[in-house]
Amino acid sequence: MRQSPIVRTADDLGDVLRGWRRVGLSVSLVPTMGALHAGHLDLVRRAMQLADRTCVTLFVNPTQFGPNEDFSVYPRDEHADATKLSDLGAHILYAPPTEEMYPTHSVTRVSVPQLGDLLEGEFRPGFFTGVATVVTKLLLQSLPDVAVFGEKDYQQLQVIRRMVADLFIPVRIESALTVRETDGLALSSRNAYLTAAERQVAPRLNAALRQVAAAGDAAEAERIAAQMCVELRAAGFARIDYLTVRDAETLQPWAGPSRPGRVLVAAWLGRTRLIDNVAMG
Amino acid sequence: MRQSPIVRTADDLGDVLRGWRRVGLSVSLVPTMGALHAGHLDLVRRAMQLADRTCVTLFVNPTQFGPNEDFSVYPRDEHADATKLSDLGAHILYAPPTEEMYPTHSVTRVSVPQLGDLLEGEFRPGFFTGVATVVTKLLLQSLPDVAVFGEKDYQQLQVIRRMVADLFIPVRIESALTVRETDGLALSSRNAYLTAAERQVAPRLNAALRQVAAAGDAAEAERIAAQMCVELRAAGFARIDYLTVRDAETLQPWAGPSRPGRVLVAAWLGRTRLIDNVAMG
Repeated sequence: MRQSPIVRTADDLGDVLRGWRRVGLSVSLVPTMGALHAGHLDLVRRAMQLADRTCVTLFVNPTQFGPNEDFSVYPRDEHADATKLSDLGAHILYAPPTEEMYPTHSVTRVSVPQLGDLLEGEFRPGFFTGVATVVTKLLLQSLPDVAVFGEKDYQQLQVIRRMVADLFIPVRIESALTVRETDGLALSSRNAYLTAAERQVAPRLNAALRQVAAAGDAAEAERIAAQMCVELRAAGFARIDYLTVRDAETLQPWAGPSRPGRVLVAAWLGRTRLIDNVAMG
Repeated sequence: MRQSPIVRTADDLGDVLRGWRRVGLSVSLVPTMGALHAGHLDLVRRAMQLADRTCVTLFVNPTQFGPNEDFSVYPRDEHADATKLSDLGAHILYAPPTEEMYPTHSVTRVSVPQLGDLLEGEFRPGFFTGVATVVTKLLLQSLPDVAVFGEKDYQQLQVIRRMVADLFIPVRIESALTVRETDGLALSSRNAYLTAAERQVAPRLNAALRQVAAAGDAAEAERIAAQMCVELRAAGFARIDYLTVRDAETLQPWAGPSRPGRVLVAAWLGRTRLIDNVAMG
């Protein structure tokens, strides 16, 4: 099995990618924080269909973690990740050290007010500024034709679409459907934190979303969502940060069936925070 | 005389510039807010030496003006600007309407904390976020090989260098020396606001900077700077926002002759705020 080469610096990455572009090969990018699961591999497969060459980045971005969040314990296993990506045939891996992405005097931040301040942004202040900043850097280091993000992080996808449009970053953003366990639990690197008992309860989150998604109008959706919060807490969820129906583009409150809607949830199971979302209808 | 073509949209600009790049022509960019004077034309000449094709942008950027600043009255004369640039032989002018640069739902901001918060940033909150945001947009719309900025706006130049490095924007930043009237006054579009009497006093600003720049060490520089503030006020300057010697790269207080230093001033003459700067030594 051929190993996918790993580069560590933006210069080395640029050299390889410029070489490809020079001979007319298109490039797709899949930014990840590593700890790859089948959901990530699905993004990579999609990226490989969309361009001649695919670059996967592995970088646990410190600026998107809050001071009391799980940056230090976030799962890291570059060797396992590299093996999975080599097996898939990803053409290059970019795993920069932190000082490559954030050199000593680096201070510039990209923020997406409004869209980035609600939902996740309310509970994780600064999160989307961290995401927007690192994604801007990765996109401008690699200048891919297309970059692929998962619907699992739905608000992140919308923030990135907005940022790319607003700043005129010359890249096409594509999304891929959330990959789930057979019982409905969305794949997430943070599922590794769940105890066996919590793992049994976790699929209730997606079941609740699907019940809300079946509602015929905004009022019914709100009613079911409130009921689902009660049921999730009864099932063992410690806290529901939000369970809400939003406009699928603006993430403002859903106006009803004339607009595409999205049900989004964030909830704590023990010490693990899980997020998920599904389309209305 | 051939007129330089004017484009209004990022798409049209991209089409022209991609066409040039495709046939191997390099591109330089000169971002301006119009109201062109000999200083701007010097930047354009320099840009034309640095690349095969030169694009000059004319855009009065609303997000870099504070609520009580001069956005509405800032001098605008596109016809005169276009004539000057055509005479020079600039290859294309980009004069987008506000809604092209900031469409309705656009919210993304680029900020450069620290470097952008001191000096001008202290007196014009949000100014450098406005500058960094619009320059990022212009650079990513045009993807030039090189972009040219004047030393007249010295802190802006340093903020843009920092931002380009931090975000990995694929462009080289070049600077050009400040162009001055024979009496030392730095050319500025805002000089048009000066009354005849104020115009007589204005060159004192540069004279004061040159006296500070001749100092042999940091203590002497501070002493002369304090004295110059007194003299400028006596000469008719209403308020000195700052007159200070800083490290030429970090804009932190100057450590002395072991480091390159820069003397920077902002001061009010009647209702006009003037800025200037010179190198120490």
